Amino acid sequence: MRDCVAIVGCGLVGRAWAICFARGGYQVALWDSAPRAVSAALAFVEQALPELESLGLLDGASAAVVRARVAPAESLAQALAGARHVQESTPEAVETKRAVFAELDRLTPEDVVLASSTSALLPSSFTEGLAGRHRCLVAHPINPPYLVPAVEVVPAPWTDAAVCERTRSLLQGVGQAPIVMQREIDGFVMNRLQGALLQEAFRLVGEGYASAEDVDIGVRDGLGLRWSFMGPFETIDLNAPGGVADYVARYEALYRRLWETQQHRVPWAGPLTERIESERDALLARSRLAQRQLWRDRRLMALAAHKRAAMRSGDAAGGDPKSSHTDDTHDIHD
Amino acid sequence: MRDCVAIVGCGLVGRAWAICFARGGYQVALWDSAPRAVSAALAFVEQALPELESLGLLDGASAAVVRARVAPAESLAQALAGARHVQESTPEAVETKRAVFAELDRLTPEDVVLASSTSALLPSSFTEGLAGRHRCLVAHPINPPYLVPAVEVVPAPWTDAAVCERTRSLLQGVGQAPIVMQREIDGFVMNRLQGALLQEAFRLVGEGYASAEDVDIGVRDGLGLRWSFMGPFETIDLNAPGGVADYVARYEALYRRLWETQQHRVPWAGPLTERIESERDALLARSRLAQRQLWRDRRLMALAAHKRAAMRSGDAAGGDPKSSHTDDTHDIHD
Repeated sequence: MRDCVAIVGCGLVGRAWAICFARGGYQVALWDSAPRAVSAALAFVEQALPELESLGLLDGASAAVVRARVAPAESLAQALAGARHVQESTPEAVETKRAVFAELDRLTPEDVVLASSTSALLPSSFTEGLAGRHRCLVAHPINPPYLVPAVEVVPAPWTDAAVCERTRSLLQGVGQAPIVMQREIDGFVMNRLQGALLQEAFRLVGEGYASAEDVDIGVRDGLGLRWSFMGPFETIDLNAPGGVADYVARYEALYRRLWETQQHRVPWAGPLTERIESERDALLARSRLAQRQLWRDRRLMALAAHKRAAMRSGDAAGGDPKSSHTDDTHDIHD
Repeated sequence: MRDCVAIVGCGLVGRAWAICFARGGYQVALWDSAPRAVSAALAFVEQALPELESLGLLDGASAAVVRARVAPAESLAQALAGARHVQESTPEAVETKRAVFAELDRLTPEDVVLASSTSALLPSSFTEGLAGRHRCLVAHPINPPYLVPAVEVVPAPWTDAAVCERTRSLLQGVGQAPIVMQREIDGFVMNRLQGALLQEAFRLVGEGYASAEDVDIGVRDGLGLRWSFMGPFETIDLNAPGGVADYVARYEALYRRLWETQQHRVPWAGPLTERIESERDALLARSRLAQRQLWRDRRLMALAAHKRAAMRSGDAAGGDPKSSHTDDTHDIHD
């Protein structure tokens, strides 16, 4: 029986995946063409687990037990022996992916799922010529996946639907939140949504309506609060008395009017980015960027712990009638 | 000395504002042309405060003390007597706003700020003809403002900069997070950002790439986590080793490519909304919408409490070097 996941490529993304699968109960085999990457990944895992355990983010397992599930492999073939799922996280170059996937396809039985972590390449661009192309897909995480559950599962046109479903089920089983796309498109779901929002953010600053910090306030102290526990469709579903159809009937005309003023692109590079950079520099000295990344990671960890607690205490009820505090937002669309 | 805020219009938005200003230490006078709305607002405030107190969301004051700061007025003139700031939240019709603002302008000394909660109207559309138009602006909250701090402060072309600054300072003083726009535009900041994201969300579902629930997962289990404590500019500032300019140098071309595929609008109403509605119905029966709104409000409250705690424990440090757990995301742009 195959209860192993093979991590192929042990950089920032691969090592983070190792934590997810090991936390979820799988034996994890690490392989990288650079042996140093494997030992660095093991050191990272070892160092990250105690903090995750202390925040209740190891699903009740101890750091030691999770750590014991992760082992380096002597060779790619050894990493793949016994794997039911291969998670590839090598550099983002199509030639690299083609070569790696050809080797993975050659070395594994055809019921093993071959998943790439790529964010930039369509699965069709590096799997077309493979005999086993039906079992290849993209499973793209947001880093680090042990704190951010969403994973984009993206099929090529020739990927078996059953392979998508097996991947969904594997990921759900280890506590991730798979987005199973029906077909591939550049940017998948999340970078497309983020890109649409970023274009408007740059436009508002570039055309002198607001500062970068004002845009940031609008998200971190406004829109982003609900978005951290409800998606945009659930948000609008709850923002009109009759649900999403009622919301569309009330507000589509308004959003169409805004849309018409959003059809030009402001170039990011150049004076606009210089202005934003100097605004950011005043808020956060460039020398403190790395320190602030640590802050971000701790906030993400604290939020993950908060969400687990909130889910346990309230989600099952889905609205507890004894709490009579309410403030529906019927008269606003935001 | 004026230490009073007048709430003119006591519906869903006005009553929520009353909590913000009273929590912040102001005497709050409530007025509405319908006396029933005033008593309903008082009942709402009375009922909401104990839960806010128990979650630590009253800044250390007791529910009783905050409640005692809120009083109904016998007349509009009485509500305005002693007010330094008027927060107007009457129905969203330009004729109504024009009439109300004319009356407010007539009844108050010219150093009183007249702010409208409107989300749909530009401040220039209902203040142009007023003698005191320089002290009129929009202060648009996301409901409910006692849980969601962001407020859009929007000047008309003739609004004094000093009036914007006084409003910023008043709002910051009561714990809100003002976005002070440099000039007005339809949709302000937040609905423009939300609209850009929604257009892409509808497009992804309408063109068969993903389900509505998949889009929701991408936000609530992905993008929305960081956005609940960092805006989009800080997010990208921390997602490339050299900060925002480095991020733009690496990824603008990719987002420009996505942009080119985002230049067509999918109509929301009709078959697409029917499909989304039936998908939502399967996840949440239409009969349970109101119950789910209560759930949303409790989750917002819990998140507000979480953010206050996280801010106290970590923000001052801005990155504590003794926590060596790190996972920067240099190789991905999301």
